Amino acid sequence: MQIRGLSAFPITPSDAGGRIDTDALQRLLARLAAAGVDSVGLLGSTGSYPYFSRAERGRAVAAAAECLGGRATLLVGVGALRTDAAVELARDARQAGAAAGLLAPVSYAPLRDDEVFEHFRAVAETGLPLCIYNNPGTTHFTFSPDLVGRLSGLPNVVAVKNPAPPPADAPAVLAELRERAEPGFSVGFSVDWHAGAALLAGADAWYSVIAGIYPATALRLARAAQAGDAAETQRLDRMLEPLWRLFRTHSSYRVVHLAAALAGIPNAVPPRPVLPLSGAARQEVEQALGALALD
Amino acid sequence: MQIRGLSAFPITPSDAGGRIDTDALQRLLARLAAAGVDSVGLLGSTGSYPYFSRAERGRAVAAAAECLGGRATLLVGVGALRTDAAVELARDARQAGAAAGLLAPVSYAPLRDDEVFEHFRAVAETGLPLCIYNNPGTTHFTFSPDLVGRLSGLPNVVAVKNPAPPPADAPAVLAELRERAEPGFSVGFSVDWHAGAALLAGADAWYSVIAGIYPATALRLARAAQAGDAAETQRLDRMLEPLWRLFRTHSSYRVVHLAAALAGIPNAVPPRPVLPLSGAARQEVEQALGALALD
Repeated sequence: MQIRGLSAFPITPSDAGGRIDTDALQRLLARLAAAGVDSVGLLGSTGSYPYFSRAERGRAVAAAAECLGGRATLLVGVGALRTDAAVELARDARQAGAAAGLLAPVSYAPLRDDEVFEHFRAVAETGLPLCIYNNPGTTHFTFSPDLVGRLSGLPNVVAVKNPAPPPADAPAVLAELRERAEPGFSVGFSVDWHAGAALLAGADAWYSVIAGIYPATALRLARAAQAGDAAETQRLDRMLEPLWRLFRTHSSYRVVHLAAALAGIPNAVPPRPVLPLSGAARQEVEQALGALALD
Repeated sequence: MQIRGLSAFPITPSDAGGRIDTDALQRLLARLAAAGVDSVGLLGSTGSYPYFSRAERGRAVAAAAECLGGRATLLVGVGALRTDAAVELARDARQAGAAAGLLAPVSYAPLRDDEVFEHFRAVAETGLPLCIYNNPGTTHFTFSPDLVGRLSGLPNVVAVKNPAPPPADAPAVLAELRERAEPGFSVGFSVDWHAGAALLAGADAWYSVIAGIYPATALRLARAAQAGDAAETQRLDRMLEPLWRLFRTHSSYRVVHLAAALAGIPNAVPPRPVLPLSGAARQEVEQALGALALD
């Protein structure tokens, strides 16, 4: 199990009662598979995983496994506030055909390193390969390189998804993680507007929000960076700067829900209390996306 | 509905599978009622509310209503990540005999003010009086005085529980909240080691962790402060400084679980991934609590 290349994180279409629209989800996933993304990050933060029940998450994994049919590696968010719930979700995902789980240390009471370590140990014992999902902006827990290194020594902990640092710091951050982690451990990055630089620096994977809605565009950037073509990577990155600005201003989460709705995907609204973009913000995003005309 | 005086926030004893031990909970609650606390904050952050299912939370409210029998006002945490879930919990709590709900804006995707406002509006429409539960350390959302003021204008939003500022700032913080909020709105504070000063400054309520395990001690401090006896308030506060230090070092959440276990309460362990204090930390807390001998 090796996570490499471009991982696309789609939204999860759902109705107001929290029921996932698996038809709409499959429409999104079919586009990702057709474009040729390397993996799909189903039920990631962009996919609103903590807002759905265990049963709904199970329905989403089954629908995704059926739709992808092995064309892209299926990664599935198995994070939960309780350790026993995360263990159940990992078992469910494994049984439904997930290749690996994305495990974020969801917190309410702030967690300490030893608590997160034991949480990962318990979930890894299900046998599902795990990617450490480091997303401090939502989980409010930050993995130190030391903790990533310790976790990489657990059986079945195979990868980390870290927020990408500013481009100038990417080589050093990557080098430190490589030094701490076990050989063969996959080191990848999120934060789309810094991901090109991280791939150029030699990262194994880009965990991408834009790839969940504009997979062909993201693939062009990923393939250029993986081939070491800095000029083309930077050209595409500059072309996308208006989108990155929207992500930073309105959150990528809100922007890609609107982008999916504009692309005709039903039920492309975030779960309440999160509200769809409206008014001037919606108009700004609509205009910018219209001008970019991404695929 | 007016929340005033000392509100005691107990832990929620539960087993490893997330089933609440209602017998153990009633033992804790009976002590609080016998001591004479003004209200009980059942299923607050100290009571681990987001870690329990809707069914378990319902069992806890029913057990508390039965045990208290009106001897103390019953406040119940009704926070949830989804708006529809919080609405259901508020309806459940109202039907089971809660006098008011404690509503924290639990978040994963970071929330904006308008989203939190609409969330509160939806839950308030259940008819359950609500206390705004401002706990940025766990929810990662901070209520501005302006937002508290706007929310106080909604029917059924009757109180706010804010983290108490350092003592020197208490009068100004309280004055600003009073100015923004509707007349008759209850302004109260958490953070035990700053609560005496907040009550001396004229706050309506102290939302107290220590009162959930040592109610008589907390009542002595609360009554001195409510009577304007600054010397006695400060004497008791200084006497409790070793406990406040433990709270700041190990989190009040972990410390009071151990305190309850030491007091013989069964199933007084936090839900995993949170681990009970162990080793040197446990020894330190045991010794300090033994030396204080609080009631």
